[in-house]
Amino acid sequence: MSRRAVMVVMDGLGDRPLPEFEGRTALEAAETPNMDRLAAEGVNGLMDPLAPGVRVGTDVGHLALFGYNPLRVYWGRGPIEAAGVGLDLRPGDVAFRANFATVSTDGRILDRRAGRLREGTAELAAALDSMLLSDGTRVVFRAATEHRAVLVLRGERLSPLVSDSDPGPLGEGGPVLPLLPRMEESQAARRTAELASEFVERAAGILAEHPVNRERVDRGLPPANYVLLRGAGVRRPMRSLAERFNISGACVAAECTIVGIARMTGFDVVTDERFTANLDTDVDAKAAAAVDALEEHDLVIIHYKGTDIASHDEKPKEKVRFIERVDAALERLISAAERYDLYIAVTSDHSTPCHLREHSADPVPVLLWGGDVLTDGVRSYGERPCVAGGLGRLSANALLLTLLDYLGVTYRFGG
Amino acid sequence: MSRRAVMVVMDGLGDRPLPEFEGRTALEAAETPNMDRLAAEGVNGLMDPLAPGVRVGTDVGHLALFGYNPLRVYWGRGPIEAAGVGLDLRPGDVAFRANFATVSTDGRILDRRAGRLREGTAELAAALDSMLLSDGTRVVFRAATEHRAVLVLRGERLSPLVSDSDPGPLGEGGPVLPLLPRMEESQAARRTAELASEFVERAAGILAEHPVNRERVDRGLPPANYVLLRGAGVRRPMRSLAERFNISGACVAAECTIVGIARMTGFDVVTDERFTANLDTDVDAKAAAAVDALEEHDLVIIHYKGTDIASHDEKPKEKVRFIERVDAALERLISAAERYDLYIAVTSDHSTPCHLREHSADPVPVLLWGGDVLTDGVRSYGERPCVAGGLGRLSANALLLTLLDYLGVTYRFGG
Repeated sequence: MSRRAVMVVMDGLGDRPLPEFEGRTALEAAETPNMDRLAAEGVNGLMDPLAPGVRVGTDVGHLALFGYNPLRVYWGRGPIEAAGVGLDLRPGDVAFRANFATVSTDGRILDRRAGRLREGTAELAAALDSMLLSDGTRVVFRAATEHRAVLVLRGERLSPLVSDSDPGPLGEGGPVLPLLPRMEESQAARRTAELASEFVERAAGILAEHPVNRERVDRGLPPANYVLLRGAGVRRPMRSLAERFNISGACVAAECTIVGIARMTGFDVVTDERFTANLDTDVDAKAAAAVDALEEHDLVIIHYKGTDIASHDEKPKEKVRFIERVDAALERLISAAERYDLYIAVTSDHSTPCHLREHSADPVPVLLWGGDVLTDGVRSYGERPCVAGGLGRLSANALLLTLLDYLGVTYRFGG
Repeated sequence: MSRRAVMVVMDGLGDRPLPEFEGRTALEAAETPNMDRLAAEGVNGLMDPLAPGVRVGTDVGHLALFGYNPLRVYWGRGPIEAAGVGLDLRPGDVAFRANFATVSTDGRILDRRAGRLREGTAELAAALDSMLLSDGTRVVFRAATEHRAVLVLRGERLSPLVSDSDPGPLGEGGPVLPLLPRMEESQAARRTAELASEFVERAAGILAEHPVNRERVDRGLPPANYVLLRGAGVRRPMRSLAERFNISGACVAAECTIVGIARMTGFDVVTDERFTANLDTDVDAKAAAAVDALEEHDLVIIHYKGTDIASHDEKPKEKVRFIERVDAALERLISAAERYDLYIAVTSDHSTPCHLREHSADPVPVLLWGGDVLTDGVRSYGERPCVAGGLGRLSANALLLTLLDYLGVTYRFGG
């Protein structure tokens, strides 16, 4: 039988003790017979996305899980989101991650996600796309998942050295930040910051009058009347997984960030309308798609966003329920081990403790299951049980390399 | 009493669960009362030669164990093998690791090791040594352990950027690979590849007619009728252990690779005809030689190859027996603790799971024993028991530094 591997990533899985569960984490409180079985039959450990104490975003966490050194290949979330919506960045393009947001008339951020709106974003984006800025720089604007969108500035002598106008979750209720050059002495950075500001101002005017927003206001919903920007970046060349290890990979995901990283790193993307990158995703359909993808791919990564959503919204019980649904879906993967010499890894891109509503640097639990892994004494999958695991404490890069080594595709360094 | 340290390296020790032993590894299945005692009285852990998930060769694994960063000092196995046979490379020399092999008339590799031949290699090597190549480049050719040999090209404007003709274990049965420049635009690389090819072709002609081979064919043995090349490299300057830590080291070994690394790093080499770098080595005589070497040396490293040989040949029971013989020989080292304030480390350079017949990136178990080490709860020496050890998961470089720190010879970083 040919060797195959599946990595199941529950975004923001890691947590801290929760009073709701007598000090257990969401994962520890969840009923997870399949994960527990895999943990008991496999090898376990704690994983840091980059290194202990380093807090990462979903993009950086996934670049590391996909086997890249974010310190080398990462420059801003913009280019990743652009790849996620299928935009092919040209040399010189500067891409921003954008949020449709609700901002008051005096410039305070009422809702960074405009009520996590889902409908009408394509129409809103179309109203902003192709805008021509004062010096001839062209705007490319695309809606992504839910409130997320991508802004690309396409013109001459642009710079990615532009600060964020989005202050992040802790800035909600406060003012929109000014878009400033990150390097005052760079004329290109000053100019790009001014062009981005011009776009944001004109976009606000267009969005205020847009029928989608008029209807939202009529329905009592927060209007998507503003575009918050962050993560300005340019495209950097990356060697694909296929080039590096001569294997084929597939990624089952819906969130544009993950889809973007998968595309940038040469994974085939498997997506579907039933995959929502939220709590209401079809958890089981994703697992089924992963099993299908195993036929033609050596490595399949499944991304589940629900855990992170529930954590950011401080809904520990929904987090538990989502984990339990993922656990049930693991049945399909375990059954696939009848057809392949299969390795299964279950882990996360970073911790998002519910009571913080934000990412933390806590390591995440990881399990690795397969016919010839060295077992350890761990009997269940959780932040605390995994401490005693045979993998010890390792980085996300090291986990992917370990998985690739079990697949037998790593290179030997030395004679 | 003066402080001394011995490191016992069982090459390719680490393994994965073996069905022959109900899922135990060879080390776990072996009866090892001495190792178990040292583990119970010492501190234990899991060790990665370089880093988790990185698979290494014996040369790189040992450079790391000897305290060097292979990413800085390693450039090909050739120069190490040259040092191993006592060849002093000159600036400009390019050295290759060579194998006497059996190749069919249509260029397929029948046996990469010509039946692991042991006799007649000095005569075969002598017939190839001193060959003058077409442009005046001179050949230096020496036999090493068993089927192994060293080719040095000595001439003007040579380059180590030449690919391997040896496809490795998985290439047996397939064709000899062409020797090509690794950098097409380098004239020196192109020329060196051509010179190496010229040598190989002329060598095949000489070997075919050689009496040693005629006799092998008569006896039904595979003839050593071809020279496979790999690991082209040049000498790189290295600071010796004595220079770095002001201590004296000895290495008890027979395999040319290990002997070469020991010489390059300033260890005195202790070898003997009874040491064969194979399963039939005199295990106990090596331990006795190590005890003798302790009189004049602060650090003694003993290398046992048998574990790796048994693993590459998929002979788990022979691996177990060899480990048990090493365990018995440890008595001598333990007794030496009456005369010295002695530290004993037992570990490996990399894993070679028997059913893979190849190196893997699995970490290896390590134990460190001595009067003042902090003990842990580990009660026996094995891949799984060591998970719970007080050393955690560390790199080979870190292990050597830890050992040197117990010897009291490390430098304090800071005031």
